[in-house]
Amino acid sequence: MSSSRDIEEGLSFAPQFGADGLVTAVVTDAKSGDVLMVAHMNAQALAKTIESGEAWYYSRSRKKLWKKGESSGHVQRVVELRVDCDQDALWLKVDQLGPGACHTGRRSCFYRAVPLGKAGSVTLEFREAEKTFNPKAVYDKKR
Amino acid sequence: MSSSRDIEEGLSFAPQFGADGLVTAVVTDAKSGDVLMVAHMNAQALAKTIESGEAWYYSRSRKKLWKKGESSGHVQRVVELRVDCDQDALWLKVDQLGPGACHTGRRSCFYRAVPLGKAGSVTLEFREAEKTFNPKAVYDKKR
Repeated sequence: MSSSRDIEEGLSFAPQFGADGLVTAVVTDAKSGDVLMVAHMNAQALAKTIESGEAWYYSRSRKKLWKKGESSGHVQRVVELRVDCDQDALWLKVDQLGPGACHTGRRSCFYRAVPLGKAGSVTLEFREAEKTFNPKAVYDKKR
Repeated sequence: MSSSRDIEEGLSFAPQFGADGLVTAVVTDAKSGDVLMVAHMNAQALAKTIESGEAWYYSRSRKKLWKKGESSGHVQRVVELRVDCDQDALWLKVDQLGPGACHTGRRSCFYRAVPLGKAGSVTLEFREAEKTFNPKAVYDKKR
């Protein structure tokens, strides 16, 4: 068991998987810096990402290992992988192949904004309403 | 209960808190685009962030609501708040006041990289070893 100081200041990679066996992975576009998506990795997804330089995740809904782009072709080439202070979160800077990362057909999963300064119920505002690809055509083609 | 389509394509803000009552919040520097930290919000932290325009979180280790900068003065002014497709993750673009966001004394929590292309055990590489502030001086001053 690593000490808090070892985890924060050391050079040993000791990812702190949660009780569910996962760490959070934040994915940004290496060129624009925009956040494309937030996903999760188990130990196997992380090992495959490190070895291959392409992003693998663990799908909580489908309960399976998943290579980004395996259906869509929208593979993520990892430019840099970073770990945070307490080693329970990862940051992937990626070259996103194809027109987008989001399963809804958009470049980024973060296409709506939450207006600030108001209490109570909130109405979202689209920032990128337009789709850059047709998810039905992309994801259904192999099924 | 909102449908998947409502959550993904609608304008109703319906944050999907997990079983632990939390959503993941990714925080980037509005100027540099760098990821500063990953934190968590409960409903109250999210409401306070939206109302005040300054970032509040929920600390899983301390089990309490927490205003970023309450000890250090390193407040985060939220420039834009976005929500992802399935509304279980938030992206805050912030103006980070003071010299940094990380409790270790650095600008960003992501100061180490994981080298790619190798299988087996991994040695981290510092990308920002130097501290921009002395955490002991900053966090202990009010205690």
